[in-house]
Amino acid sequence: MAVNAESIRRLFREVRSGRLSPDEAVQQLRHLPFEDLGFAKLDHHRALRAGMSEVIFGQGKTPAQLAKIFAKLAEQNGNVLATRTTRAQFAAVKKKLRKAEYCELARAIVLRRDPKIYGKGTIAVVSAGTSDIPVAEEAVVTAEVMGNRVARLYDVGVAGIHRLLANHGALMRARVVIVCAGMEGALPSVVGGLVGVPVIAVPTSVGYGASFQGVAALLGMMNACASNVSVVNIDNGFGGAYVASLINRLS
Amino acid sequence: MAVNAESIRRLFREVRSGRLSPDEAVQQLRHLPFEDLGFAKLDHHRALRAGMSEVIFGQGKTPAQLAKIFAKLAEQNGNVLATRTTRAQFAAVKKKLRKAEYCELARAIVLRRDPKIYGKGTIAVVSAGTSDIPVAEEAVVTAEVMGNRVARLYDVGVAGIHRLLANHGALMRARVVIVCAGMEGALPSVVGGLVGVPVIAVPTSVGYGASFQGVAALLGMMNACASNVSVVNIDNGFGGAYVASLINRLS
Amino acid sequence: MAVNAESIRRLFREVRSGRLSPDEAVQQLRHLPFEDLGFAKLDHHRALRAGMSEVIFGQGKTPAQLAKIFAKLAEQNGNVLATRTTRAQFAAVKKKLRKAEYCELARAIVLRRDPKIYGKGTIAVVSAGTSDIPVAEEAVVTAEVMGNRVARLYDVGVAGIHRLLANHGALMRARVVIVCAGMEGALPSVVGGLVGVPVIAVPTSVGYGASFQGVAALLGMMNACASNVSVVNIDNGFGGAYVASLINRLS
Amino acid sequence: MAVNAESIRRLFREVRSGRLSPDEAVQQLRHLPFEDLGFAKLDHHRALRAGMSEVIFGQGKTPAQLAKIFAKLAEQNGNVLATRTTRAQFAAVKKKLRKAEYCELARAIVLRRDPKIYGKGTIAVVSAGTSDIPVAEEAVVTAEVMGNRVARLYDVGVAGIHRLLANHGALMRARVVIVCAGMEGALPSVVGGLVGVPVIAVPTSVGYGASFQGVAALLGMMNACASNVSVVNIDNGFGGAYVASLINRLS
Amino acid sequence: MAVNAESIRRLFREVRSGRLSPDEAVQQLRHLPFEDLGFAKLDHHRALRAGMSEVIFGQGKTPAQLAKIFAKLAEQNGNVLATRTTRAQFAAVKKKLRKAEYCELARAIVLRRDPKIYGKGTIAVVSAGTSDIPVAEEAVVTAEVMGNRVARLYDVGVAGIHRLLANHGALMRARVVIVCAGMEGALPSVVGGLVGVPVIAVPTSVGYGASFQGVAALLGMMNACASNVSVVNIDNGFGGAYVASLINRLS
Amino acid sequence: MAVNAESIRRLFREVRSGRLSPDEAVQQLRHLPFEDLGFAKLDHHRALRAGMSEVIFGQGKTPAQLAKIFAKLAEQNGNVLATRTTRAQFAAVKKKLRKAEYCELARAIVLRRDPKIYGKGTIAVVSAGTSDIPVAEEAVVTAEVMGNRVARLYDVGVAGIHRLLANHGALMRARVVIVCAGMEGALPSVVGGLVGVPVIAVPTSVGYGASFQGVAALLGMMNACASNVSVVNIDNGFGGAYVASLINRLS
Amino acid sequence: MAVNAESIRRLFREVRSGRLSPDEAVQQLRHLPFEDLGFAKLDHHRALRAGMSEVIFGQGKTPAQLAKIFAKLAEQNGNVLATRTTRAQFAAVKKKLRKAEYCELARAIVLRRDPKIYGKGTIAVVSAGTSDIPVAEEAVVTAEVMGNRVARLYDVGVAGIHRLLANHGALMRARVVIVCAGMEGALPSVVGGLVGVPVIAVPTSVGYGASFQGVAALLGMMNACASNVSVVNIDNGFGGAYVASLINRLS
Amino acid sequence: MAVNAESIRRLFREVRSGRLSPDEAVQQLRHLPFEDLGFAKLDHHRALRAGMSEVIFGQGKTPAQLAKIFAKLAEQNGNVLATRTTRAQFAAVKKKLRKAEYCELARAIVLRRDPKIYGKGTIAVVSAGTSDIPVAEEAVVTAEVMGNRVARLYDVGVAGIHRLLANHGALMRARVVIVCAGMEGALPSVVGGLVGVPVIAVPTSVGYGASFQGVAALLGMMNACASNVSVVNIDNGFGGAYVASLINRLS
Repeated sequence: MAVNAESIRRLFREVRSGRLSPDEAVQQLRHLPFEDLGFAKLDHHRALRAGMSEVIFGQGKTPAQLAKIFAKLAEQNGNVLATRTTRAQFAAVKKKLRKAEYCELARAIVLRRDPKIYGKGTIAVVSAGTSDIPVAEEAVVTAEVMGNRVARLYDVGVAGIHRLLANHGALMRARVVIVCAGMEGALPSVVGGLVGVPVIAVPTSVGYGASFQGVAALLGMMNACASNVSVVNIDNGFGGAYVASLINRLS
Repeated sequence: MAVNAESIRRLFREVRSGRLSPDEAVQQLRHLPFEDLGFAKLDHHRALRAGMSEVIFGQGKTPAQLAKIFAKLAEQNGNVLATRTTRAQFAAVKKKLRKAEYCELARAIVLRRDPKIYGKGTIAVVSAGTSDIPVAEEAVVTAEVMGNRVARLYDVGVAGIHRLLANHGALMRARVVIVCAGMEGALPSVVGGLVGVPVIAVPTSVGYGASFQGVAALLGMMNACASNVSVVNIDNGFGGAYVASLINRLS
Repeated sequence: MAVNAESIRRLFREVRSGRLSPDEAVQQLRHLPFEDLGFAKLDHHRALRAGMSEVIFGQGKTPAQLAKIFAKLAEQNGNVLATRTTRAQFAAVKKKLRKAEYCELARAIVLRRDPKIYGKGTIAVVSAGTSDIPVAEEAVVTAEVMGNRVARLYDVGVAGIHRLLANHGALMRARVVIVCAGMEGALPSVVGGLVGVPVIAVPTSVGYGASFQGVAALLGMMNACASNVSVVNIDNGFGGAYVASLINRLS
Repeated sequence: MAVNAESIRRLFREVRSGRLSPDEAVQQLRHLPFEDLGFAKLDHHRALRAGMSEVIFGQGKTPAQLAKIFAKLAEQNGNVLATRTTRAQFAAVKKKLRKAEYCELARAIVLRRDPKIYGKGTIAVVSAGTSDIPVAEEAVVTAEVMGNRVARLYDVGVAGIHRLLANHGALMRARVVIVCAGMEGALPSVVGGLVGVPVIAVPTSVGYGASFQGVAALLGMMNACASNVSVVNIDNGFGGAYVASLINRLS
Repeated sequence: MAVNAESIRRLFREVRSGRLSPDEAVQQLRHLPFEDLGFAKLDHHRALRAGMSEVIFGQGKTPAQLAKIFAKLAEQNGNVLATRTTRAQFAAVKKKLRKAEYCELARAIVLRRDPKIYGKGTIAVVSAGTSDIPVAEEAVVTAEVMGNRVARLYDVGVAGIHRLLANHGALMRARVVIVCAGMEGALPSVVGGLVGVPVIAVPTSVGYGASFQGVAALLGMMNACASNVSVVNIDNGFGGAYVASLINRLS
Repeated sequence: MAVNAESIRRLFREVRSGRLSPDEAVQQLRHLPFEDLGFAKLDHHRALRAGMSEVIFGQGKTPAQLAKIFAKLAEQNGNVLATRTTRAQFAAVKKKLRKAEYCELARAIVLRRDPKIYGKGTIAVVSAGTSDIPVAEEAVVTAEVMGNRVARLYDVGVAGIHRLLANHGALMRARVVIVCAGMEGALPSVVGGLVGVPVIAVPTSVGYGASFQGVAALLGMMNACASNVSVVNIDNGFGGAYVASLINRLS
Repeated sequence: MAVNAESIRRLFREVRSGRLSPDEAVQQLRHLPFEDLGFAKLDHHRALRAGMSEVIFGQGKTPAQLAKIFAKLAEQNGNVLATRTTRAQFAAVKKKLRKAEYCELARAIVLRRDPKIYGKGTIAVVSAGTSDIPVAEEAVVTAEVMGNRVARLYDVGVAGIHRLLANHGALMRARVVIVCAGMEGALPSVVGGLVGVPVIAVPTSVGYGASFQGVAALLGMMNACASNVSVVNIDNGFGGAYVASLINRLS
Repeated sequence: MAVNAESIRRLFREVRSGRLSPDEAVQQLRHLPFEDLGFAKLDHHRALRAGMSEVIFGQGKTPAQLAKIFAKLAEQNGNVLATRTTRAQFAAVKKKLRKAEYCELARAIVLRRDPKIYGKGTIAVVSAGTSDIPVAEEAVVTAEVMGNRVARLYDVGVAGIHRLLANHGALMRARVVIVCAGMEGALPSVVGGLVGVPVIAVPTSVGYGASFQGVAALLGMMNACASNVSVVNIDNGFGGAYVASLINRLS
């Protein structure tokens, strides 16, 4: 039951005390806090439950739709984030919320209002090649919006292993590591072998031919021979950072 | 460089002070602590680096091979764990190490010597159906051997959602959740939506026909609509618990 | 034999009575009611056999082709439906049939002439996320055109299970349920576990990366752990509603 | 919430009347009727909700495990069914329940105690080839145990279309049709075009080479050009009959 | 309608003449010549229609089942053939039909009674490697039983192209060519480029790793750059020869 | 050796007689009749060998490239055919060869100069749905250009089996049948069961979702339960007709 | 360790001699020669290690990005190569480096400054069809830029095997052979059987339908029955030539 | 033409001189040196062409078949090798050839008679994990039989990158490197980045779940971000060594 036991107990007490009739109680039990935008129910409860606000997946939404949802979320939450967005979508948001920013590389729209750092340590975001940067930046922006310190380690792919090793120190200082890589997706195995903290692997669709839009990388990561690696969906920089943020908040 | 900067600096200092010749220093630099068993190099360094000892993957090894590696690891580490093992392999280990135990359901051999609890909170291990239990138990044994408190929530698949909800409290108390599910692999999405902590999803090969030995579950989990889910390989209960343990150790 | 026994018997009787020569009888036997539009044979018999008129699949047809077929069907049947259509196709139809309507969300052209309710109960159309709505609406329009009462339950995905549970009553009142979901396709399992009526699952191509344009959802639904679930093709909202309508007509 | 509104209302009323304290009420709310067998929670509620008792999937269970679950279910329900069973499993069940029968072709164990017919009409079970019979028989046994009249139409594959047409009458009399076919899985399309009732397609793993253990048949059925076809998992005769039974019970 | 127009016309004439009542005529129309063995309907009509008798697919049948079907077919047809059979199945057949032979390499049981040559020319059966011989021999036996002259060209794979070219003459004399090849399945392209007659390609499951049990060969053959190539299922030597026989009979 | 034995023998004779020096003979042996267009070697020999001229695959070629190759082939052969062409490509060809025609539905450019009928019988081209017509028409044009009589049977898909049966006579008169079908690709099985001649199945990419651009149809056809079916590549109407033409020429 | 032992020894010696403090030494050890362009670290060391300069993969880069990287590489290396480029990218490069050339067929930008021949023999680049030429030309340009003599053998696909055999001499003279082929990818097997040197197979995405954008060719080549074949990624003409160049440099 | 120009020229000369009649010459031209064992044609020419004798693939052959082929090859060649063999096959060979040896780890039968070293340098055989050793040993045995010096580097997987780096020297001394790895197949990328010589990658079927019997490793290697990597089939240690040997022989 999504409604927690305490609030139910309170309902029962109010019924006992006569402040509430049984029917009113059933009514209240059902009155869960939804808001109806017509095409999407926003769930403010979820912020309490999952520790963070819902994030908007911009792809496939019209600028108007996106702006409307964005503005709605902006009424209540701290920071607001929309991923996979275009400049056109940003323009529509910008009209409603002048403080919204566009992160070009990450293709994300951000409204930063809560500067607080919730993360206990640093999240390292590692990427294999230049083409993986959009996914890595989506992870960076997400992690920052969720209140984390972030360290970038870009272009340290496994075919030039010394580049990665030269940045070993930064890796070692991280509390959790996000690794974005396409093609053969080998980087999480190597990074996982170097560090003693959780590694979140994000396969990217970078590559061609037998990379099958990220499937080769995804399979590589699922079979990582380092045991501290878990994997999220292809190009899901947001998801990688979301998981990393939850881990980094644990105290 | 896997050898950390401090030990290199020490080497330079000893060279400077004359206690070591340059050639001896190069020699020492290279003298990494490997042991050679003939067919597998055990890496004691890794315990320091990754925070835990190497674990033996029993499948495909002869009882004699397994017992030899197990005994070797037992010389130095605290707890020792071998997964995907058979009763025959256990018999061979038992002859060398009388305190080794066999966890039938988990198909694991364990030597428990370090009873210390390293985890900060509880790891909940959730499984969808009866057939997922071997994978879930592998996760439980691994998590326990790595010094965690574990709470089991078995047989709470999504087709009987009230069973899961009836155990909502135990879920909410966990610091990290491992979810093992085969068939459609839907459970991590539901669990992920209920809790605000990291969820490690372990697809199992349970199912038939279009489950493709766990591929359907794996894909389901990669596409989980809850953002706090990351995924390990099919039937990889060990890996799920390894990641969960690292997360649970963070302080 | 598609021609039923009764009409054959009648033919034999007319031959016996001399009203028909054997050759004329063979001729009549063959004279099945086809009409030839040049590029598509419309089958009016099928309305009798399958209980409903043929529906036009608009995708890939030119506005002129679509309008021609639509008008032809409109000569004889009650309601007429074309799915996967564009505004341009609608414009061409509109010129021929002024009462035709365009259902924007469902991308469907409808000519409503038969307002009769044939369905015995209500069909619930459930969708997981905002992006699944076009498929869900195609199901809604189809079910309505086929003479059913429809209840919409949108945006009740499994990662916010309380939203679904809050609508439990509407689900329970349905005689048959259509569930549209992309990504991991978990919703039919959960809904199937809640209701005691048939659930028609419609995987949608919503998602990215390892969703493989709906394959992950399709596999998830094929492996649904609830036994009352059967599945139609990806994005096939029409097919889901067609099956549901047949079920709902049974008396 | 799986617990329905009525019982909650009753709880509130009892609290109001003082027959129950708020804490007792919360307690009762939670006391959902599970039984714990150690490795599988049986859900008697589900019979009420889904209209039928849980069915045992025998594959992978030891004779002892199967017999134990079977006996447990036999304590409360009417008919009991276990699918994908072996003669050895049946022997174990037989010892506990002398009236249990073994359906050789269907590989099912049945305990028939409720002879009542719940279905409104006849379910036709159609199979393409001789090798599809085990799956078809699983459907037949399931449908019978669930209280349906069943008509078998076997060996009427599409390469000898006249065999199917010769049985057209039986098809036309069915209220719902189950079609089991392997290889190219074409039969549901043809049957679907002949009848005006719902067709449940069950792909079988019959075939070799490019049949990929039923994948070719599954894909064929997902793409059936008849609109009244929905599909269940490969070799899932039980699932096909379960859906058909629910449909056949609707009144 | 499988029943041809002529016999229907005859029925009408008999009705006209009064020799048959309309009801008797309908009855006769339906009386199609099936025989019911309980588990498989044999179709003697098909011999007339398709020009050859049905062939038994032995795999998965018990010796008793196979022998029963074999004997039944032997009552009426000329030659009888069962493919994918074992020595045990042959023993059962042998008891009933002393003249049955077992073709070891082809794994086929044959009863040769009609020595007539129906084919107009020679069928060349070409195989790439030694391991492809069982499939090639199944093709040879099938072609012979169907009354064709056959020329074998074995072990002429593309990596030793001169072996194939050295047998160029035999290829050129064939009226239709069957090519069996596993691994990369390249042989049909080369053979297709050398001859001006139809080439039936039979992919075999020979290979390992990325041959995926014949899928690589199948795909290779589907993409053959010679235009005179068409393809049958993996390891389907029988099917290749059946198609080749039909072609070779054309006059 | 592509060069036949007779011409080699002649060379040896000329060497013996002194009309040719050994070195000249080796030179002549190598002088195979190629022409070099810079980007494609046309092979006039092949017309002799394979019985027909090479056909141009238009897709991906610029209008200029296509026109150049087309004109080159037109210098020597009878009919010339280019498939998968656009109106723009046709315009370029038209400028060079005024008699070239464009077959809109088939997307083919044809230059008809040889009206001779080479085929012994009629080729029936059967298609399942309206959308399969472009592929079917490519087959028709190819078969006609290669000197065959062609009978079209369109829109006779298996979900309306009586439409196919109503055209049974035309099918029965064909010497070879080409069947084009997308979606579940079931039509070749049904047609194959009705006729006693070779059936060439052409899967089309018609469909959506789980049709996977023709893969479902391809697999269906590979597993056709009628034995007289062989298959060519997806959308390869040309290939189907090429094979059918070779068969139809056999005497 | 990417830094070789000799340079480390030198560091130790300088520390010993007092020319360097331990801390300075650690500093130097870390000072690996990277340059930071902001979005891509160029690795000049790699030229020393791998024997050749890094090559730019143009696809997905803006003209400005490409030109910047190209110019940076041009500061230090001999020849510079960018593959998968467009005319627009070339225009941007041309502005910075007037001597840059564009290879239309190969879609490559080249700056040739080092005319030296490093290869010991000739590299033969073989292609199956006209459409494979872009990939083959990428291989040719790469091999030339890396200092090799190249022999082209184009349009010698296996369906016209005599064309290949007519060029047998050129093949036999090559020290290493690159074979580019799409569709069924059979050419490397045939070529591999003819020559006694390494064959690098490059599958191309040429084809349609069941070629799956080069997957059929890739699988064909992985299963090549000639043992001297190894394979690179689909359309990876560059990679094929890179490997061939390394082989051709060996002395 | 597999027969080279020189021998043809010689034939012409003998015809010119009258020592040979034209017909005898044609006869000789055709008399290619095949031997017919009934089930496999051995090709002694190939030793001359490809530089090495044919190797026997033992899998699926009976001990008797294997021994017969082995003995036949032993009549003429130097070293003889059979891969994928069993102890039973070895026993049969041993009876015929007392000097044959069995390489347990490599599962290979070897007859060593030619101790000559043909390779110019050393071949390094690198393997990722203990389970990859059988494939690596097949490569080692093959390379040795073909006359190469071999250096083994085992158990140096990427999750413990320092193990690989500690063996950097041995890698740098190799003239060609073979890398065997299963699971994610990342090792060739790392090794490829460290060395400047050709790397032959051999994916192994080591792994479980999403490793798909080596497919994940194969895809990883096809997408290796190091350009000096080419790939052979899964578990094809022999093929890797064959290619490496050809490279190592080049002078």
